[in-house]
Amino acid sequence: MAERNGLADMVVVIGLGLIGGSLAASVRASGAAREVRGFDADAATRERALARGLVDAAPATLAQALDGASVIVIAVPTLAVESVLAAVRDGAPANAVITDVASVKGSVLAAARRVFDALPGGLVPGHPIAGSERSGVDAADPHLFRDHRVILTPHAGSAVEAVTCVRSMWEQAGASVVCMDAAEHDRVLALTSHLPHVLAFTLVNTLARQDASEQIFGFAAGGFRDFTRIASSDPVMWRDIAIANRPALLDALDVFSSAMTELRAAIDAADGDALHAAFTAAREARERYLGMLATGMHRHSTLNVEHT
Amino acid sequence: MAERNGLADMVVVIGLGLIGGSLAASVRASGAAREVRGFDADAATRERALARGLVDAAPATLAQALDGASVIVIAVPTLAVESVLAAVRDGAPANAVITDVASVKGSVLAAARRVFDALPGGLVPGHPIAGSERSGVDAADPHLFRDHRVILTPHAGSAVEAVTCVRSMWEQAGASVVCMDAAEHDRVLALTSHLPHVLAFTLVNTLARQDASEQIFGFAAGGFRDFTRIASSDPVMWRDIAIANRPALLDALDVFSSAMTELRAAIDAADGDALHAAFTAAREARERYLGMLATGMHRHSTLNVEHT
Repeated sequence: MAERNGLADMVVVIGLGLIGGSLAASVRASGAAREVRGFDADAATRERALARGLVDAAPATLAQALDGASVIVIAVPTLAVESVLAAVRDGAPANAVITDVASVKGSVLAAARRVFDALPGGLVPGHPIAGSERSGVDAADPHLFRDHRVILTPHAGSAVEAVTCVRSMWEQAGASVVCMDAAEHDRVLALTSHLPHVLAFTLVNTLARQDASEQIFGFAAGGFRDFTRIASSDPVMWRDIAIANRPALLDALDVFSSAMTELRAAIDAADGDALHAAFTAAREARERYLGMLATGMHRHSTLNVEHT
Repeated sequence: MAERNGLADMVVVIGLGLIGGSLAASVRASGAAREVRGFDADAATRERALARGLVDAAPATLAQALDGASVIVIAVPTLAVESVLAAVRDGAPANAVITDVASVKGSVLAAARRVFDALPGGLVPGHPIAGSERSGVDAADPHLFRDHRVILTPHAGSAVEAVTCVRSMWEQAGASVVCMDAAEHDRVLALTSHLPHVLAFTLVNTLARQDASEQIFGFAAGGFRDFTRIASSDPVMWRDIAIANRPALLDALDVFSSAMTELRAAIDAADGDALHAAFTAAREARERYLGMLATGMHRHSTLNVEHT
């Protein structure tokens, strides 16, 4: 592939929502690619991306967008990745670097195995740990990834140059990049992201189903607003994530449920010591976590991290 | 009781933590009381409250603090309210107005029934829907209650003048006040506050118990930080709330658990339609709730509100 300033000649972003639009804008603003092309199935989104200057060009078909691509970023909902991979197989240069931004990585590798005879050396799945309850091209922001983490999950046959290329793209966007095994990624994200989202969605629905629910919401305080912020996330994206990461998410739900059952028993027994211990442990764990964030310790994680 | 500018001659705040200290400071700053006296079992807290100017005086004993009180605000952890009520019975003027700030109201009325032969006409339990994951006298802030709601749960024999007095005290602090049945309060708060806290504590503990938990926390994003903010709340306060509101909290946990079971089944079945419907319903309910906040509709709730 043609390199230029450590990045690529022709970067093509498929899917111009919050993440795809933000990454396209960031690469374009950096000048690290000769051209940034975008594609979205929705014509209005393509026009908006052009009007906002997120991309240099936004062809009307996926095949046109993929033609001559050196780096392809697939930024569509998780379960739509497979059909884009098939289009890449059929229409993109064989030596293109292929990455994605899906929140689940095992399912992307599984889809690639179904689409390609052998996993391409250019394929380096990725996941930026960034996002927002906002979504769509209008929320795209070239600075979205600054000081955020990106996890790459290269497969055994990923080419070193492809990993370097994808890493460089994220680093120019201000992100810090680590590599990790896909299964480990999916387990960690199930716990830190997918489970909390499911809890927030479920909590809001629990309240909404009550009689006089609007009045009940009216008595919710700031803590509730923060707690449920993630329940405003995009339903299509989260439907796909829940299905794509089903085994790890079910495990996380079950671990959570058994902790809930334990705590419920302590409440039922009015066991003050057990409750105090549980709440203290949670507060202390969270303080350690915040302290870690503050000192940047999380940048030095050693959790099955490879290729770093 | 002696009135002055619509408030009281001698306001006594028992417990100088975040809520008690903030209310004392607010009353003192308003000049609506001749004197604001504070008491805390912890001598260092008393000294700090004096040094910060939250109170005019901070006697060393509860009996001294209660002597000559016209309004008594009990701002100790929920399960300590009963012992303070006993001290009030033994040492405060019989015509004093008595209120509290505990997060559970049925348990306060039950404690008062145990302490007094008959519920005093001056007793008007209350609950400011404000707070913070911060706690303690150093976090006290006279503006804490501005634009927050306070729920009063007068009993059948509460004197109208006592309700008016407590309402005035909160309104001068900038809060909006509604009255509600104590059982209804406890049900609503179990859903909007106590349940979310239990979920946040449980989520953090679930993660903390995993192998390599520090690394796992390191991959948590901003959504996780918001979601778990309330897990940094005071463990003693929350132990007491969980026990004092046990029946309503167990009900809320069970309603939540059955919603979780339903959603788990949809994930297990990869039922995209059901998941999409559930996530969409949650997003829409939350948008309605935020819209309600923005338009101030929640100020006009009609949820079994009495005495307004």
